[in-house]
Amino acid sequence: MKLATSLQQIQPSYIREILAAASAPGVISLAGGLPDDTTFPLAIMEKSFSKLADNPRLFQYGGTAGYAPLLAHFRAAYQLPESQEALVCTGSQQALDLIARAFINPGDTVVMEAPSYLGALQVFGLAQANIESIAQCSDGPNLTELEACFANKDITMFYAVPDFHNPTGICWTLETRKKVAQLCQQYNVAFIEDVPYRELRFSGEALPLVSSFCPDNSLVLRSFSKIATPGIRLGLVTGSSQWIAPLNTIKQGADLHSSVPMQSVLLDLLTDDGFQTHLDNLTALYQGRYQALAKQISNKLPMCQFNPVDGGMFLWLSLPKCDVYALAQAALEEGVAVVPSTVFYQQRGDVAPALRLNFTNATQDELSYAIDRLARVIKTHC
Amino acid sequence: MKLATSLQQIQPSYIREILAAASAPGVISLAGGLPDDTTFPLAIMEKSFSKLADNPRLFQYGGTAGYAPLLAHFRAAYQLPESQEALVCTGSQQALDLIARAFINPGDTVVMEAPSYLGALQVFGLAQANIESIAQCSDGPNLTELEACFANKDITMFYAVPDFHNPTGICWTLETRKKVAQLCQQYNVAFIEDVPYRELRFSGEALPLVSSFCPDNSLVLRSFSKIATPGIRLGLVTGSSQWIAPLNTIKQGADLHSSVPMQSVLLDLLTDDGFQTHLDNLTALYQGRYQALAKQISNKLPMCQFNPVDGGMFLWLSLPKCDVYALAQAALEEGVAVVPSTVFYQQRGDVAPALRLNFTNATQDELSYAIDRLARVIKTHC
Repeated sequence: MKLATSLQQIQPSYIREILAAASAPGVISLAGGLPDDTTFPLAIMEKSFSKLADNPRLFQYGGTAGYAPLLAHFRAAYQLPESQEALVCTGSQQALDLIARAFINPGDTVVMEAPSYLGALQVFGLAQANIESIAQCSDGPNLTELEACFANKDITMFYAVPDFHNPTGICWTLETRKKVAQLCQQYNVAFIEDVPYRELRFSGEALPLVSSFCPDNSLVLRSFSKIATPGIRLGLVTGSSQWIAPLNTIKQGADLHSSVPMQSVLLDLLTDDGFQTHLDNLTALYQGRYQALAKQISNKLPMCQFNPVDGGMFLWLSLPKCDVYALAQAALEEGVAVVPSTVFYQQRGDVAPALRLNFTNATQDELSYAIDRLARVIKTHC
Repeated sequence: MKLATSLQQIQPSYIREILAAASAPGVISLAGGLPDDTTFPLAIMEKSFSKLADNPRLFQYGGTAGYAPLLAHFRAAYQLPESQEALVCTGSQQALDLIARAFINPGDTVVMEAPSYLGALQVFGLAQANIESIAQCSDGPNLTELEACFANKDITMFYAVPDFHNPTGICWTLETRKKVAQLCQQYNVAFIEDVPYRELRFSGEALPLVSSFCPDNSLVLRSFSKIATPGIRLGLVTGSSQWIAPLNTIKQGADLHSSVPMQSVLLDLLTDDGFQTHLDNLTALYQGRYQALAKQISNKLPMCQFNPVDGGMFLWLSLPKCDVYALAQAALEEGVAVVPSTVFYQQRGDVAPALRLNFTNATQDELSYAIDRLARVIKTHC
C-alpha cells in the first residue's frame, strides 16, 4: 500500500532518535521530558490496584466520554458550567489529535508560538495544517505580531502552552493572558490551551487560565502524566459542548474509550487525602533540581543565558553563536544528551542557538556532571 | 470552529442510541456486543494488580510499539517472521483507525463484505474512503463478485472479519480463505484481517488465518476485549514491517503509546497457567447460551431462519418481509433490544430484513424471555 498523502511529509522525530541514544550507559539525559519515576504516587495508587478485581464493571466496555464518577469529579473540580463538557482521552496527546481531526481541513491555518511543542507540530503536520509561527517573548507571544496575524489571515485556532512552555519554560503574564483571550474573541479564533505543566509551579503566583477569559471560545487540555504517572495514559479535554461532541464522535472510531481501570485508579488518586502532599513533594524536588541547575549554569557557563522559570520541566539555555545541532551531537559523545533549538521550529533557518534542558529526570549530582560536560563542549564549539 | 469535511458526513451511531435505550430497567439487551462480565479472568489478573506498584518503570512513558516483554511474547506466540512487526494498540479499534489514516486518501476504495462491522464503516467513513460492498454468502464473500471488483477497480484494501463475522457470525471456509488470499496477491490488494472473535470457537475445526496464505500482503488485527477484558483497551496489529512503521508514526501523534500497566497485566494473564481453562470455560458458557437461543428460535420463531454458528457472539436472524427498523423499535417497547439489519449496510435500500442477536451477555433464562417477547412483535409486524 502507498502511504497516504498526509504521511508523506512527516519527518522522523529527532527527539526519538536522540532519546534512544540518550539511554546508552553513562549518558546523562537532559533531553527527554520525563518525570522522575521515584516520585510516582504508587503508595497511594496501590490501594486502588488491590481492589480493582472487586469491581468487574470497570473491565467492561465503558462510555466514550469517560468513567462517569471521574467525569463528575472533573466537573466539580474544574467548576465546569452547564454549557461545557469533559472528554477523558488516552493522554492529552490524544485530545490534541482529536481536535486536529475534528476541526482542521488540509490547508487550514493554525497559529503557534515559535519555538513549539514537537508533539503539536507533528499532529498539525499530519492534519496538513498550514502553521503560522509567532515569536515568543519572555512574557508570552509577541502580541503585535499575533494581532497582525489574526487580522490579516484566516485562522482556525491558536494552540499554546501558556504555563511553563515546552521547550522554553516561559509562563505568560496576566496581561498577556487577558489580551490573547480578547484577541481570540475579537477575531473569532479558537484558543487551544494545553496545560500539562500547570500544576508544576514551584514559585510565583498561580495565574488564571487564558480560557477563563474566553470560556466559550476555547478548549483546555490537561495531562495526568506529570502529576500522576505517564504510563497510565490519561488526559482530559474540556470546553463548549458543541466542540466536545465531535471529539467524542472521532474518539468512538479512534479507540472507543480510554482504559476504565486506569480511570478508576486516577479518580482514587486525585481525591486521596495524600494527593496534595504528593504534589508539594514533587514541586519541591523539581524546584531543588532547577535551582541546582541554574546555579551550575551561572557558575560554569558564563557565556550562556537563560530565563528563570517558576515551574515546569525545562530550562532554555541560549548559547553564543554556534552550530547548535553539531554541538548537541558533540555533547552526546561527551556523555550528555540535550535537544538543540532548531528542532522546535517549523522553519529551521536562522534559529537562535539554544538548548532545551530537562531538570526533572536527573539528580542534582547528575545535573552538575552534565553541566561540566556541556561546558567543555560549548568552549570547543562556540 | 467549523467541522472538518471528513466529519460532516458522519451519522450519529444508531447502535449507541439503541444501547442507551437498552440499558433501561426491565429491558433484555441482545443489541450490544458485550462479553459477560462474570467471566472476566479477574482472579488471575488480581495477582498482577497487587504487584504493579513494585515496578515504577511500568508507570513511566513507554515505547510506542508496546511493552517490550509483551511484544516478545507476541512474536513467539504468533510465530512472527523477521520481516514482520507487532504494534500494541489502544484496542484493535485503534489499529483499524491507524490503518485508515496511514493508507487511505479521500476517495480511495476499500472493499468490505455487506453486511459490515459498524466500527469499520465509521472509521473508513471518517477517512472519506469510497466503500465497495461485496455480498456475503454462507461461506464468506461472493468470490465472483469479489474478483470482478478487484479486476475492474482500483482497490486499496479488503477489510474482513473471516472468523465469526460481526454481525452475521459467518466463518469463512478453508477454500474461501485460500481463494481470497490468492485474489489479493494477484490484484495487489492489501488484506486487512480483523479477528476479534477468533478464539471464541466452541465447535468445528479451527481454520488458518487468511493472512497465513498471503503474509506479505496483509495486516492482522487482534483484540483482547473478548478473551481478556474490554475495559483495559488493548489490541494488536501485526504484519510486514514496512506497513507497521507508518502506523507507529501515526500512533506517536495519536496517543504516544497504550497503557503500560495494562500491557503488563495482559502479559501475565496470557502466560498464566490458568488462561486456557478460562478460555475453555468462556467458550463453553457461550456455546450453552447459543444453543439455548437457537432452540428457543426453532421452537418459537418457525417463520424465521438463521445460519448456525460455531463461535463468536452473534446470531443473524432472517425475518419474513417487514419493516425491520419499525420492528426493532417495537421490540424495544416490548422490552427486548435488538439491532435491525439495515444499520449494517452502507447502502440501506433493499436490505433483507434480519436482526443481529447477541448471545454472550444474557443468561439462558433471559434469552428465553427475549425470544418470547420477540415472537409477539414479529407476529404483529411480519
